[in-house]
Amino acid sequence: MKVFAPATVANVACGFDILGFALDRPGDTVRARLSSEPGVTIEKITSQFGDLPFDPAKNTASVAAAAFLERYKPGLGLVLEIEKQMPIGSGLGSSAASAAAAVFAAHQLAGEPCSKADLVEFAMLGEAVACGSAHADNVAPSIIGGFTLIRSYDPLHVLSIPYPNHLRTAVVHPEIEIRTEDARKVLKRNVPLHQAIAQFGNIAGLVLGLCTSDSSVIATSLDDVIIEPERSVLIPGFMKAKVAAIEAGALGCSLSGSGPSIFALCESEEIAIAAGKQIAAVFQEQGIASTTYISGINNQGAKVLD
Amino acid sequence: MKVFAPATVANVACGFDILGFALDRPGDTVRARLSSEPGVTIEKITSQFGDLPFDPAKNTASVAAAAFLERYKPGLGLVLEIEKQMPIGSGLGSSAASAAAAVFAAHQLAGEPCSKADLVEFAMLGEAVACGSAHADNVAPSIIGGFTLIRSYDPLHVLSIPYPNHLRTAVVHPEIEIRTEDARKVLKRNVPLHQAIAQFGNIAGLVLGLCTSDSSVIATSLDDVIIEPERSVLIPGFMKAKVAAIEAGALGCSLSGSGPSIFALCESEEIAIAAGKQIAAVFQEQGIASTTYISGINNQGAKVLD
Repeated sequence: MKVFAPATVANVACGFDILGFALDRPGDTVRARLSSEPGVTIEKITSQFGDLPFDPAKNTASVAAAAFLERYKPGLGLVLEIEKQMPIGSGLGSSAASAAAAVFAAHQLAGEPCSKADLVEFAMLGEAVACGSAHADNVAPSIIGGFTLIRSYDPLHVLSIPYPNHLRTAVVHPEIEIRTEDARKVLKRNVPLHQAIAQFGNIAGLVLGLCTSDSSVIATSLDDVIIEPERSVLIPGFMKAKVAAIEAGALGCSLSGSGPSIFALCESEEIAIAAGKQIAAVFQEQGIASTTYISGINNQGAKVLD
Repeated sequence: MKVFAPATVANVACGFDILGFALDRPGDTVRARLSSEPGVTIEKITSQFGDLPFDPAKNTASVAAAAFLERYKPGLGLVLEIEKQMPIGSGLGSSAASAAAAVFAAHQLAGEPCSKADLVEFAMLGEAVACGSAHADNVAPSIIGGFTLIRSYDPLHVLSIPYPNHLRTAVVHPEIEIRTEDARKVLKRNVPLHQAIAQFGNIAGLVLGLCTSDSSVIATSLDDVIIEPERSVLIPGFMKAKVAAIEAGALGCSLSGSGPSIFALCESEEIAIAAGKQIAAVFQEQGIASTTYISGINNQGAKVLD
């Protein structure tokens, strides 16, 4: 069985740790087959984006699949073949896509014993191996598709947010490395109440704008007053790129996850292409090569390819 | 001209400073007439709930109306007669209702020179006189009606949130006094990031649940992890009353504004009546008399009575 799980944009400006959406492309592919031997093994990893561990206890895909099997089919053995088709450490949810694909493949081979939403908690365990902490804002959209809300982490409660179908996004991945450690280090442990209130308003506005297909409300709400100001300093040219994307017509522009990728949410493919070009041009001025992905919001999430 | 502006429930559990909704009753009535002498004067105040200032510079109603006239009809004089029909300092938005009624009356007499939403900023100035700070989460629903979001304070941006029409609320006002000063004193200046994230999820969930008429999502999202734990200690029996209201079938229960009133949001009039009785019974056990208001969500806001 061959499955695909898409790249994702987490946080979506104001929704730190709670919002995310899935892209049509890129994404990761996992081939999986049942084995007579219990446990999960990794047979092959294809990647042009750097080395990934074969040790099943260290690879995000095998950890996620193993946790799933332990709950639903303890005797089942699984052999994985991972085709990495997206950059690692890019802010595009690379480790989440592998975990999502693996756990979805295990779910299919095990006869679909639960709902897609139930898979999120197992994929999170894969995320934890890769990132050091178990976040769901990438794995949830990668599995379920669409625009997702992690309403609560304790207990885990994942919801789908309706959104206008015409939305398109440009995600630009600059070839710079931000260590997750550094991206976490800049986070404040405490938020001034007045900043929290500003973020409350933007989060409520973004959900309202998505639910009511109101582009101007989406645009004005795509504003992160807490995390972006801290993390964006790690990305050369960020503010110039953001302004250029919005001038090109984007509804908003912010970090994809913890960066360094930048996403621009737009009302059409044409605007997304224009915004993507603007962002890439700013990186080029800084002497930084980048890759641009233009995509709709993928409403399917993880899927079987054959 | 005689106008009415309704009482309001601000904060609505997780939406500190940004969410509010209007009640059908109680509310305040203001009679207003034009005068040849510029400025706003207060001719009469009827109140069984305590004294209010006649000084136009100190009364929330006259301050709001004067600010409006100064912007739109600088030469116009106004005489106000305020009929206070709801308790003061109750958490029901009493000062907001007077300010909303006065500014709405001025707006009508001046020939409706702007939109209802534009009136919010003037009513806020009235609020500031009464509370010491200019909040909009009571005045906005009192003027506009319905369920409102203050998406941003700077610049002021007020939005209406769709909501299921069958929602009813019980608001129980216990006869205890909480000084606004004390209610503000317990507020933290900084919020731990993990608490802010939990609140982000609940706010997003509440707006999503309202927009999609999903009662279970509304119920699970009506949870304030930041303000309620601090302020509710000022209200004897709060937690017991909350549990009793939810056991009676309420979707959620929290402080109305900064209290001492408690609201329970419910799916029907019957449940609201039952929840209101439970809350009142808990106050009675504590030796505290209370008044219960059962109401739908008022979608009209401020209105002309004759």
